[in-house]
Amino acid sequence: MTSIPPRETLTFPPGPAALITPYLPPNNTNTTTTTSSSTRAYPYVTLTYAHSLDASISLGPGIRTALSGPESKAMTHFLRAHHDAILVGAGTAVADDPGLNSRLAAAVAADADGGGGGRVKQPRPVVLDPRGRWAVHAGSKVVELAREGSGLGPLVLVDTGTVMEEGRRRVLEAVGGRYIALEARGERGRFEWADVLSVLKQEGLGSVMIEGGGEVINSLLAPPGNAFVDSVIVTIAPTWLGQGGVVVSPVRSTGVDGQPVAPARLTDVTWCPLGEDVVLCGRILR
Amino acid sequence: MTSIPPRETLTFPPGPAALITPYLPPNNTNTTTTTSSSTRAYPYVTLTYAHSLDASISLGPGIRTALSGPESKAMTHFLRAHHDAILVGAGTAVADDPGLNSRLAAAVAADADGGGGGRVKQPRPVVLDPRGRWAVHAGSKVVELAREGSGLGPLVLVDTGTVMEEGRRRVLEAVGGRYIALEARGERGRFEWADVLSVLKQEGLGSVMIEGGGEVINSLLAPPGNAFVDSVIVTIAPTWLGQGGVVVSPVRSTGVDGQPVAPARLTDVTWCPLGEDVVLCGRILR
Ligand SMILES: NC(=O)c1ccc[n+]([C@@H]2O[C@H](COP(=O)([O-])OP(=O)(O)OC[C@H]3O[C@@H](n4cnc5c(N)ncnc54)[C@H](OP(=O)(O)O)[C@@H]3O)[C@@H](O)[C@H]2O)c1
Ligand SMILES: NC(=O)c1ccc[n+]([C@@H]2O[C@H](COP(=O)([O-])OP(=O)(O)OC[C@H]3O[C@@H](n4cnc5c(N)ncnc54)[C@H](OP(=O)(O)O)[C@@H]3O)[C@@H](O)[C@H]2O)c1
Repeated sequence: MTSIPPRETLTFPPGPAALITPYLPPNNTNTTTTTSSSTRAYPYVTLTYAHSLDASISLGPGIRTALSGPESKAMTHFLRAHHDAILVGAGTAVADDPGLNSRLAAAVAADADGGGGGRVKQPRPVVLDPRGRWAVHAGSKVVELAREGSGLGPLVLVDTGTVMEEGRRRVLEAVGGRYIALEARGERGRFEWADVLSVLKQEGLGSVMIEGGGEVINSLLAPPGNAFVDSVIVTIAPTWLGQGGVVVSPVRSTGVDGQPVAPARLTDVTWCPLGEDVVLCGRILR
Repeated sequence: MTSIPPRETLTFPPGPAALITPYLPPNNTNTTTTTSSSTRAYPYVTLTYAHSLDASISLGPGIRTALSGPESKAMTHFLRAHHDAILVGAGTAVADDPGLNSRLAAAVAADADGGGGGRVKQPRPVVLDPRGRWAVHAGSKVVELAREGSGLGPLVLVDTGTVMEEGRRRVLEAVGGRYIALEARGERGRFEWADVLSVLKQEGLGSVMIEGGGEVINSLLAPPGNAFVDSVIVTIAPTWLGQGGVVVSPVRSTGVDGQPVAPARLTDVTWCPLGEDVVLCGRILR
């Protein structure tokens, strides 16, 4: 790793950390210990995002949106340090130019000393980009951070039929990332979650935190996607973004009586007030 | 009051009650004490409702929707007992045939001994029904409860141009309710909130809990309606009702830069976990 001084670091207090820890991947899904992680067909999946009271994760794609407070931001970086990978859809990569690293002080420290044996370390960024929409370049934030040694180079999943430019490929490979070809055999040219998670498993990633955006989250809340989700951590900010934002609301099905059926409910629920926000942890009721 | 045995009663534990009390109308807005309530131009307004994580208050108009848990139900009845009036829109009256009384044990008891001097008592139901859509009859739940002495007869606000059937009028008056004519001079034939709240004040109602439904809530969250709201109490259930429900999401405006502006934010926030749900109390940030 380089010796560039780390950017501003964050700490997350032990009180809320203790409430959230039961929803994190167990230690043994981590790639550094292998015993029982190898018994799982897929990585441990944590679905996590922040939204307004009206379930909006953003005022609109690419519009900078003040939502959750500083404590929730620290939590995001705490969560990122406790997963092997962090995944977003192409929509988020294109709209937000996200950093996808952890600025948790412990993760930054682990990184500085080589990212070694500790459980706290940088997550591997993963982008689902079947059609190659994300024009990654040397100035993309995730690439800059990886170059500085403050994050890892991203894995970008593209459809087998998509031919990627040589320039982009070199940008990724220069920071330890790469394109991975995967058949997008789902509806509307999307990846199947089983395929995506199998790839991550083969890459030795025992846990993945899925952060967004709207499309990705909605597809993981309704059946059949929600069968892959081990835990859900949602931050709710006491604000309304109003009609027309990017909304988290899964599609619903119709019951035998012709009435709509609610797509999902959480069980094993913990609510943790955090600054002005609340953090909801739970597992999808089967 | 009659001596019909009260229906099932509810109690609300003192712990959460203490957290919520700062957001309730102060004692002196109550009509039984008059000193400083008379200095307010309008009743104290508490906006309160329950929704899913995707901000849905119902799967659809008239569809019975399992949402919040038993503890939250008890809270609703606690809140109702601490307001002079409880208000819903015509959409809710038509779809739900709501009871609009309080089954809090203390309210039922106060009712049995004449509803006298105590702060805890039955609220006056108010329905906003400019076009007279709600076909109230002797079997309507709110009328039945009033007849039993377990609630008060409703005030139904209709547009000055709407002529009400004599039969419906008699049903209301037989239980101490009545129609009140009020010019619906707002957009799309709606009442202006200043007009509605002035009428309630003239009726001696010092506080009103506004419970729904979607249209009414949305109009009170965005400006200019939200200027009338003193406190907001939202119960959030850890479930998703899915796309297509009755959603609470106010309309938003556009800023000088052409970007959307979030319509409202809460301040002075308290989050109170209650069973599997959470209750959010706050005041609209001005
Ligand atoms: N508040 C938060 O916590 C948070 C977090 C992250 C993002 N966001 C916001 O979310 C917004 C972006 O969301 P979005 O809905 O536009 O995009 P998105 O969910 O980030 O990306 C969706 C895209 O991913 C690709 N994809 C491949 N397989 C998929 C699958 N199985 N399911 C779903 N997508 C799959 C598709 O690309 P193709 O269409 O090219 O096939 C799809 O269009 C931005 O405004 C961002 O700020 C908010
Ligand atoms: N979960 C909860 O806490 C909760 C609570 C209550 C209701 N609900 C649900 O809400 C749904 C009904 O909601 P809804 O949106 O159809 O109807 P609603 O908000 O109950 O009623 C709206 C109607 O009220 C009249 N109105 C008059 N002045 C108004 C004003 N200033 N602003 C808004 N409305 C005014 C209008 O009647 P006209 O159109 O005739 O002019 C309007 O259509 C039902 O499914 C019910 O179950 C849920």
